[in-house]
Amino acid sequence: MKLTKEQKLEIEDQQSQKNQTKRVTAPELEKILYEAIPILDHGFIRVVDYMGNDSSIVQAARVSYGKGTKKVSTDAGLIKYLMRHWHSTPFEMCEIKYHVKLPIFIARQWIRHRTANVNEYSARYSILDKEFYLPAPEHLAAQSKSNRQGRGNILEGEKAKEVLNILKNDAEQTYNNYQTMLNERYDGSIIDDKEDGLARELARMNLTLNTYTQWYWKTDLLNLMNFLRLRADHHAQYEIRAYADVMLDTVKKWVPITYEAFMDYRVGGTEVSSKGKTVIKKMIKGEKVSLDKSELSKREWNELMAAFDIKDKLE
Amino acid sequence: MKLTKEQKLEIEDQQSQKNQTKRVTAPELEKILYEAIPILDHGFIRVVDYMGNDSSIVQAARVSYGKGTKKVSTDAGLIKYLMRHWHSTPFEMCEIKYHVKLPIFIARQWIRHRTANVNEYSARYSILDKEFYLPAPEHLAAQSKSNRQGRGNILEGEKAKEVLNILKNDAEQTYNNYQTMLNERYDGSIIDDKEDGLARELARMNLTLNTYTQWYWKTDLLNLMNFLRLRADHHAQYEIRAYADVMLDTVKKWVPITYEAFMDYRVGGTEVSSKGKTVIKKMIKGEKVSLDKSELSKREWNELMAAFDIKDKLE
Amino acid sequence: MKLTKEQKLEIEDQQSQKNQTKRVTAPELEKILYEAIPILDHGFIRVVDYMGNDSSIVQAARVSYGKGTKKVSTDAGLIKYLMRHWHSTPFEMCEIKYHVKLPIFIARQWIRHRTANVNEYSARYSILDKEFYLPAPEHLAAQSKSNRQGRGNILEGEKAKEVLNILKNDAEQTYNNYQTMLNERYDGSIIDDKEDGLARELARMNLTLNTYTQWYWKTDLLNLMNFLRLRADHHAQYEIRAYADVMLDTVKKWVPITYEAFMDYRVGGTEVSSKGKTVIKKMIKGEKVSLDKSELSKREWNELMAAFDIKDKLE
Amino acid sequence: MKLTKEQKLEIEDQQSQKNQTKRVTAPELEKILYEAIPILDHGFIRVVDYMGNDSSIVQAARVSYGKGTKKVSTDAGLIKYLMRHWHSTPFEMCEIKYHVKLPIFIARQWIRHRTANVNEYSARYSILDKEFYLPAPEHLAAQSKSNRQGRGNILEGEKAKEVLNILKNDAEQTYNNYQTMLNERYDGSIIDDKEDGLARELARMNLTLNTYTQWYWKTDLLNLMNFLRLRADHHAQYEIRAYADVMLDTVKKWVPITYEAFMDYRVGGTEVSSKGKTVIKKMIKGEKVSLDKSELSKREWNELMAAFDIKDKLE
Repeated sequence: MKLTKEQKLEIEDQQSQKNQTKRVTAPELEKILYEAIPILDHGFIRVVDYMGNDSSIVQAARVSYGKGTKKVSTDAGLIKYLMRHWHSTPFEMCEIKYHVKLPIFIARQWIRHRTANVNEYSARYSILDKEFYLPAPEHLAAQSKSNRQGRGNILEGEKAKEVLNILKNDAEQTYNNYQTMLNERYDGSIIDDKEDGLARELARMNLTLNTYTQWYWKTDLLNLMNFLRLRADHHAQYEIRAYADVMLDTVKKWVPITYEAFMDYRVGGTEVSSKGKTVIKKMIKGEKVSLDKSELSKREWNELMAAFDIKDKLE
Repeated sequence: MKLTKEQKLEIEDQQSQKNQTKRVTAPELEKILYEAIPILDHGFIRVVDYMGNDSSIVQAARVSYGKGTKKVSTDAGLIKYLMRHWHSTPFEMCEIKYHVKLPIFIARQWIRHRTANVNEYSARYSILDKEFYLPAPEHLAAQSKSNRQGRGNILEGEKAKEVLNILKNDAEQTYNNYQTMLNERYDGSIIDDKEDGLARELARMNLTLNTYTQWYWKTDLLNLMNFLRLRADHHAQYEIRAYADVMLDTVKKWVPITYEAFMDYRVGGTEVSSKGKTVIKKMIKGEKVSLDKSELSKREWNELMAAFDIKDKLE
Repeated sequence: MKLTKEQKLEIEDQQSQKNQTKRVTAPELEKILYEAIPILDHGFIRVVDYMGNDSSIVQAARVSYGKGTKKVSTDAGLIKYLMRHWHSTPFEMCEIKYHVKLPIFIARQWIRHRTANVNEYSARYSILDKEFYLPAPEHLAAQSKSNRQGRGNILEGEKAKEVLNILKNDAEQTYNNYQTMLNERYDGSIIDDKEDGLARELARMNLTLNTYTQWYWKTDLLNLMNFLRLRADHHAQYEIRAYADVMLDTVKKWVPITYEAFMDYRVGGTEVSSKGKTVIKKMIKGEKVSLDKSELSKREWNELMAAFDIKDKLE
Repeated sequence: MKLTKEQKLEIEDQQSQKNQTKRVTAPELEKILYEAIPILDHGFIRVVDYMGNDSSIVQAARVSYGKGTKKVSTDAGLIKYLMRHWHSTPFEMCEIKYHVKLPIFIARQWIRHRTANVNEYSARYSILDKEFYLPAPEHLAAQSKSNRQGRGNILEGEKAKEVLNILKNDAEQTYNNYQTMLNERYDGSIIDDKEDGLARELARMNLTLNTYTQWYWKTDLLNLMNFLRLRADHHAQYEIRAYADVMLDTVKKWVPITYEAFMDYRVGGTEVSSKGKTVIKKMIKGEKVSLDKSELSKREWNELMAAFDIKDKLE
């Protein structure tokens, strides 16, 4: 990730601010505020603003439950209770805003999370930078044989080289042709004074989906956790997980108590279906259980065994 | 509005905070942060947190439009442009959180604005305070004859007295019976040791709709303006307008440039229908226009004349 | 529940429709369309419109996954897969609209589910009917000693009588005074020709929270399931559960395959935290586990034991 | 637009349905249900389901306003009233579902409307078709000189040829390389048996933004009108307007009364700011008005003059 001089200056300028406020703060998050944390080859994430901290969740819960919460003596106890019982509204009392630079095909996954506010760089107005995502060799994976949306082995040798060449050449060629059609270079200089350029809103259609875009993305803590639960999961595509992992770390700095509860009850937890419960109950009693009497499909059986580390995987 | 000792201490405690932050601040809003601004007889509004200021809107817009915004030289110019052209997403980049105490029948109107986060005091858990709204004499209005959802003349004399007596006595009686059924007083003391009290989640049904409740209510600036446009309007019920008017003032302290644009383009502006435009166009040209050739209904005609101060109201 | 003559005629009229459509239909749901199903003493629920059926979910999923779904041979298999893996968007492709009559204090709980469309009877415009909820004797429960938002034993004898008397008398008195203030009876007749009545938007504040209101409530199947998961649960207040139970039955008639998957994976299922999983894993292996080594709180421990029917409850 | 045999059969199959329902129907919309209406070179829109019609809006409004609506004698009168006064919730009572095929760069604009349900074809699971958008010669516009997000003159001669060649060749080349990397053709046939293909979730990044995708998109009538107001406007990019125009026509077939009100009050209407009103008021009175005394910017002045057909444009 290379920041432009302009961007570096803006970040330094933002970080040099020392404002006084009566609002609550999150000291660990303040330390990395505005910082551009590199992700993938040209991407980054920056926390550019936030509102509230763990105490805001506690405060909202205490307003809701009134004197009813006095018995839960500690903040951590209360937050764990809220998380366990899906009392979700207090977590909506915290808000965070990120500045993200990411490839377009990842932006298209990301935007499916609708409960967020977004301001994206507009290629109708302005020219996109010449930056596109090329996977590092260790992420150049073959299609999984067993899982239609998954990855298999890492490609190696000639095949890997060929793929990287294609991605690089096609992105460069389409970008160069983008400039040609615009009759304008990414720095705003005109190519041929005597010609008109194609409208920006049209020329952009020639770019490939690994071109980088950027946006401001703002959401509340509850919806952020919903996002992270899906996108920091091992089923998520690696490229979006790379962002989610960094965001998880910002959550830890922002609301450390909530982070612990989230990791315990959501990320590290498991859901067990009604039929799955019947199987587990029998196993605990030491009874013999088998797939055919369980009413589970083979796939469900294997997922259940994996969740509880039981060596009973079926082929 | 009487605050309890506990509440006063909490507010003082919050206001005495001096935290350092790298986030942007809104100095005028900081001055009134946490302060309980009285509304109606027992209600209040407090700003308890916020995120962003006018500069956050500008910054988001500049990310969206990239180099395309350089021509709009001033922040005020850009914000006015955004407001005029309904470029709404940059206004979502600011967030505010209020603590509100309000009568239940107003809370029921308010909650219809769905794009907000809410934590309300729960009468399933805790006992509501003995506080209910009684209109001031100047707000004790008769039903409007012409507008089914409006108010007419102020009630006076015996009728006014009767109404106030009813409201006061019924609220007191139902509240006292609420305590009797709970077998518990609002301060938590038990009435009769040998008896069980009715479950709180049931007993609350005996309260009247002018009982006060409270909540934390958090929303972004765009949705706040949508709320205020409807609720600070003269068509809104007086009791909710009393809250909206105070909130308008907090918007002015928070994002003064946006406030100006909002007052000009939204609050003080008018919408003209296609048919209404035809009428106005003719009037500007000095042509004679009349209701029957306008395709407008009488009501529409009158609304149009009123909007442009034309003395041509029809009965 | 007594329907007015007018309502009965409207329902008969609606039910007598025989329209032809190329849209998919849900034959079992058609049978009860528009029917008013009684709930509590004066409430009801009616399904008044719907869109889609189980096949709509399958169709949306097959558009998303393209040829990738061919392997999942049956519709039921695909729907179960979607439910298990939280692939939620296909369930949003079905929509349902209810007409509900319910006490105001329940309406206030219900409206917290924000992702729905609502048109509620407005007491600013019109006069509410003289109907209020009085719990049946078997639902007149005392406050739970252990759970602040729960119910304990059923009240009996004098205490029960006293409570019912209070609820009945206070509701009647406040309603009668509502009419007095309005100077108008619920049937629209004026009480005293020479007097003005208080504005409706003010008079309503004298009503108690067990007064019935009504609304049209429309949502998609995903959000309906989120609602039902919380509100058909045994932690929910009985009065809202009474509605949720009837709605569950309409889901069964509408989308029977989805209903089965929902009952198995959501309603009958359990979530196990990361620490809880460690306990269960040990139990399956036959190892000794105890609270103090589990890192669980006593409450969590008891909830876990209850979920898996393990007789190890701690006091 | 060429439909595959499979698609044609599916459409015929859907259209041949004759189901009986007690639900209200929209006869004109039924006639075109499931039909693929061609848009751009390979795109289409199909209405695949709907719920409600004009009468549903009226019915919801009458529930809200109770006896208060009896005075508004006709359905058309009531719908116009609702539209004029921004009583928006009754319009949420109708729902529609479209199947849309569209270029990815247009899908990215479209998805910004968040209050909708979406199931998009997933290129993680399946291979995209070899179809990409190439503008017709009359839409090959140069960048506007005055408006950064607008179009200017149509490109002609050599420049037009060059642009079309680039768009066509780059899309074909990147698509062919997509197949090469996948080691699989769009029909599912393997290219080289001995090789692994790159994971689909990665290979897709090589496609250009004019590649077609498809989705099911479902929304309520209110949000649909919000979408159409922006996207059928002359400021909208031509390619999304082409879809919006067809959708407007489906609204006309579905809810003809609402359509009329929408065209009059929203699409054909104008907003006038507070300062703009002052100018218009003076003009109606025959007073002289000029830019410098108006407090309007030149741009605002010109927009106002244009809205009311006043020949007073300033350079």
